[in-house]
Amino acid sequence: MQNKQWILNSFPVGEIKENDLILKDSNLGEVNDGEVLIKNVYLSLDPANRGWMSGKASYVDAMQIGDIMRGGTIGIIEESKNEKFKKGDAVQYQGGWQEYCINDGMGLRTIPLNTGLELPSFLSVMGMPGMTAYFGLLDVLKPKENETLVVSGAAGAVGSLVSQIAKIKGCRVIGIAGTEEKCNWLKNDLNVDGVINYKADNLNSALKELCPNGIDMYFDNVGGEITEAVINRFNIGGRMSICGQISGYNSETLQPGPRNWINILVKRLKVQGFIVFDYQARAKEAFVDMSKWMAEGKLQHKNHIVDGLENAVSSLKMLFSGENKGKMIVKISDE
Amino acid sequence: MQNKQWILNSFPVGEIKENDLILKDSNLGEVNDGEVLIKNVYLSLDPANRGWMSGKASYVDAMQIGDIMRGGTIGIIEESKNEKFKKGDAVQYQGGWQEYCINDGMGLRTIPLNTGLELPSFLSVMGMPGMTAYFGLLDVLKPKENETLVVSGAAGAVGSLVSQIAKIKGCRVIGIAGTEEKCNWLKNDLNVDGVINYKADNLNSALKELCPNGIDMYFDNVGGEITEAVINRFNIGGRMSICGQISGYNSETLQPGPRNWINILVKRLKVQGFIVFDYQARAKEAFVDMSKWMAEGKLQHKNHIVDGLENAVSSLKMLFSGENKGKMIVKISDE
Repeated sequence: MQNKQWILNSFPVGEIKENDLILKDSNLGEVNDGEVLIKNVYLSLDPANRGWMSGKASYVDAMQIGDIMRGGTIGIIEESKNEKFKKGDAVQYQGGWQEYCINDGMGLRTIPLNTGLELPSFLSVMGMPGMTAYFGLLDVLKPKENETLVVSGAAGAVGSLVSQIAKIKGCRVIGIAGTEEKCNWLKNDLNVDGVINYKADNLNSALKELCPNGIDMYFDNVGGEITEAVINRFNIGGRMSICGQISGYNSETLQPGPRNWINILVKRLKVQGFIVFDYQARAKEAFVDMSKWMAEGKLQHKNHIVDGLENAVSSLKMLFSGENKGKMIVKISDE
Repeated sequence: MQNKQWILNSFPVGEIKENDLILKDSNLGEVNDGEVLIKNVYLSLDPANRGWMSGKASYVDAMQIGDIMRGGTIGIIEESKNEKFKKGDAVQYQGGWQEYCINDGMGLRTIPLNTGLELPSFLSVMGMPGMTAYFGLLDVLKPKENETLVVSGAAGAVGSLVSQIAKIKGCRVIGIAGTEEKCNWLKNDLNVDGVINYKADNLNSALKELCPNGIDMYFDNVGGEITEAVINRFNIGGRMSICGQISGYNSETLQPGPRNWINILVKRLKVQGFIVFDYQARAKEAFVDMSKWMAEGKLQHKNHIVDGLENAVSSLKMLFSGENKGKMIVKISDE
């Protein structure tokens, strides 16, 4: 049985180029006792994927040349020799950029049926982006009612959920995104209090206008100049949670800290990085609240689903150009 | 009656130069009802003074050209028309770089007599540096027993107290300083667990050797490359309190954030700036503990006292060259 796989062929320098990843056919082995054969259906594409390809260990081990490209997936069990799973079960796991996977059951989470939620939701609002938004906002920033929150990457998979959860918690929310379409979605559908198109607007003056009482919290998905502009407008005692730094992921050199770093001292800021994996043990808290808010119609989300594993690289690149419209997902096969 | 005063004559660019501050004679006015005449005895010199001269507001209002140079002082009441003070009282206050001051009593703290402590202690261990060390370590970093703490500027007024309080709390303490003499004092007298002379040693390899289990906490007085080296060696979940950034205070441009900033995300670090003034309301907590530890012989401190108000500028500059040996104080007159 043949299995199409994306293989890391070279560590990208700057933007991902043709031949950094190559699509290959391989032979799928046998399903041994204790193992399951999984057909991958949906593949999650996330900004963090770029860092995994760098050849440098970070919060995960470094990928090696020749490895199957890593990625979060949803798959359907096709054959099971593991008593914990049966044919037809839907599972969420790190299945990688491939059509099939033989797995010993470690790291598979069965997706509950009859929730009324479509499968891709478990890669977005009920998956890693949802947990990231939930804990990065509620546990790291600890918002209080009426505080002003700025979110960068606000129309993205994580940012759009952060914006909505913060509204549920009674905050004033200003979203930063890179197109008018995204800004309109944030403003008209997600009801954030103000939007900034960082490609069109002057960041400093827009933040001044939209945050007349300063900024209390910043949920950072991007880093770079946007972060510097927010720091300039922070109130004393402001809090900042660092979730992602996408503006620097394609850079050949490390993206340096903000040039106005001294404000961390002068304004007594609290800056904290976090990784969603650290919250695995508390995942249930997020699922309970998120599904309740979804049922109440308080959480919207958008999936941008591209058909075909062969389009995974071009789809990943859309995250960096900002062309994606919602959570980026590749559909590998039919459910 | 004549009063010698240091006047801000120009905003320094880079290092403080001759004529940025000039020593002038002025006439002392009359002591009106409600006022006191104070003879300044000791003047505190601190790295933060440089920032106050920049012409830019920070956590304090900007100084203006023509202002008396700001500084913390200890003075003796010479004449009182304020019922709260009597002749001979010792007071601590922001008296500025001058021989005398007429004050309406606002902002004066009477120094208790019969404590057995010499007056300059109230500008160091029992003054602002002591409170800075106490709250910056215990409230911001919240050390736990057996954790590894790195302190930069470790032989300074604040750093040397941080190092000792951390030892009292059962931490493993590594001190960074700029001369062998300072390192020897830290190691032999203050009993820190390891020392690094940042001017002679390779920072990265020294930190690796002295912190075999990584770094849990960093008390930062300096910023710049030392901070970057510490970040490289931080454990996951490491905490950093930013007290000062002296390595950048003479720079004409803002000292940028660390080039390895991405580690705040990857290592889930918590970075927090603080200003001692925010802890005024809790000062007593510090005084109680600090005086107890002093009485128990657990806190040593060194004052570097220079005679004569005319030497204030050259003494301030010693803080930036690292020539000072202990808390820098100018003796303006006899007690």
